[in-house]
Amino acid sequence: MRPLLSSGTFSGQNDVRAEGIALNGFFEKLNRGLGGFRFYGIAPPKLSTDPDRLREIAVQQLSRIRGLAPDALVVYDIQDEPGRNGEVRPFPFLPTVAPEAYAHGALRELSIPKIVYRSIGAQSREVFSRWLDTVRVAPDPQLSVFVGAPRGRAATSGLSLTEAYALVRGASNLVLGGIAIAERHVAKEDEHQRMLAKQDAGCRFFITQSVYDAASSKSLLSDYALSLHASGRPPAPVVLTFSPCGSVRTLEFMKWLGISFPRWLENELRHSADTLERSIDLCESVFIDVQEYAREKHLPIGINVESISIQKAEVEASVELYRRLSTRLGA
Amino acid sequence: MRPLLSSGTFSGQNDVRAEGIALNGFFEKLNRGLGGFRFYGIAPPKLSTDPDRLREIAVQQLSRIRGLAPDALVVYDIQDEPGRNGEVRPFPFLPTVAPEAYAHGALRELSIPKIVYRSIGAQSREVFSRWLDTVRVAPDPQLSVFVGAPRGRAATSGLSLTEAYALVRGASNLVLGGIAIAERHVAKEDEHQRMLAKQDAGCRFFITQSVYDAASSKSLLSDYALSLHASGRPPAPVVLTFSPCGSVRTLEFMKWLGISFPRWLENELRHSADTLERSIDLCESVFIDVQEYAREKHLPIGINVESISIQKAEVEASVELYRRLSTRLGA
Repeated sequence: MRPLLSSGTFSGQNDVRAEGIALNGFFEKLNRGLGGFRFYGIAPPKLSTDPDRLREIAVQQLSRIRGLAPDALVVYDIQDEPGRNGEVRPFPFLPTVAPEAYAHGALRELSIPKIVYRSIGAQSREVFSRWLDTVRVAPDPQLSVFVGAPRGRAATSGLSLTEAYALVRGASNLVLGGIAIAERHVAKEDEHQRMLAKQDAGCRFFITQSVYDAASSKSLLSDYALSLHASGRPPAPVVLTFSPCGSVRTLEFMKWLGISFPRWLENELRHSADTLERSIDLCESVFIDVQEYAREKHLPIGINVESISIQKAEVEASVELYRRLSTRLGA
Repeated sequence: MRPLLSSGTFSGQNDVRAEGIALNGFFEKLNRGLGGFRFYGIAPPKLSTDPDRLREIAVQQLSRIRGLAPDALVVYDIQDEPGRNGEVRPFPFLPTVAPEAYAHGALRELSIPKIVYRSIGAQSREVFSRWLDTVRVAPDPQLSVFVGAPRGRAATSGLSLTEAYALVRGASNLVLGGIAIAERHVAKEDEHQRMLAKQDAGCRFFITQSVYDAASSKSLLSDYALSLHASGRPPAPVVLTFSPCGSVRTLEFMKWLGISFPRWLENELRHSADTLERSIDLCESVFIDVQEYAREKHLPIGINVESISIQKAEVEASVELYRRLSTRLGA
């Protein structure tokens, strides 16, 4: 794969060039096989948000993200998943503004790369092809993470991940990341093979779901490192996602999303006088544990911090958590 | 329960008095609700061992155990368990010398308390009652840990744990410990309740099976601490067992015994150039992790080190591991 935007100049008057500079830092790490990625993640506002409020949200997010100056912004694609675990969704599903439109529209002036999630299972081949046409003619590289059909919706008319990867093969303007889920590895013990297959399909980095279970993340990294060694392949950076948890309701929602909590850690959250503060302490400990293991295995990693909840306290805690993990991540 | 052997004098000429002194240290910790127990564990030699070789083994064990000077010696009762997991036993089962006979016979001159395991499910009410009669008239307190019927043998004519605890109620010369299994807690989430019931039945401390999974041990301690708090009961010390693992064959045997290994840790053992050394490093890390958590929860703990294997290198590693954990355990 060709190095992307390996040089650039900064004028201070040109957003595209300014964005080029920022992309440069991101791609330098990627091209040199380095870890140390710092991402911040958001979900777009609800589709029903009125335009004034939407602008207000965007302005707040711009300010918050600029303050953190991450290497990239992750924008999620939230889909309804009625079949998940067969359990009732703790929060009602509300459709959001399209992630790509929000990232490149409302947050346009944010001069860092935007990694936009795309739910492949939710769209037809025609819609996907039209999107791919716009990627090909975009002035800058487009960063995308494809998400497979949610459980319970596998039989829809949408694309499979394999089909989507085949369709974008050779699209040089597209930079792909993949999802890596340690919880899936506990159950099926093949997530490392899925990661290798995604690398073969063009994924250059991975993003996990929220990590609260250090052991399962280490187990995935362990099998991934062993299979890289066995197949003589270089590692792709694994960006570990962390999210504060400010209440039992958020905890229940995270569990519904498929995030696993060791029982002792769930007890800590449920019985703490300050669940939110305890959660970011615990996230920090979990990160230190996994980071130490990744270093031993010479695996490049990064951090991605998001707030699962839109509660003000939890969003502010995500900023605090980002700063703490960023310091731990080091230079 | 009355304090046991709360005073004593040391003559240097009398084994029973010398044993009294050593018991004293053990009971002082127990009576004062302290942790910091240091146990070393052994299985008795095979029943088929010829008498000369048996004396040789006992002399070696006496020397090794005296060098370590633990608070107590744990003597296991190894039973055949044909139904376990439905999987073939990696090592053939061979009956051993009776644990009590070995502890108080061949190892008589060892002047520390001996905690003898007793497989309740393997013996009739009559055999159990006869044993209890000998306990009542013994000159010193007898320390015993009852083991329930092995899986797959629950329907034999032996006693249940509940029946055995009922029979010994009020036997003031008997000091009971109980077994606590974190792996069982992962599956059933009720092991902490079993611990409370065992405390009510007279157990004054717990011994775990070998710990390689820090998270499941922390989860059991967490639920145990919460239920103690809810019921206003004091904690019984939890003595954590650790065993070196020198080969994939020992690993397979430990798994067959029901010991759980996080996948990453199993990978470390399987792919290490020096499995044995790696295993004691890992045991030390696991202990530090669990100890830190137990301290936060104000739970008294201890260590028990054994060698699952009779291979010389693994037995020597158990001595090294005992020394390391003993240092970590502190004063």
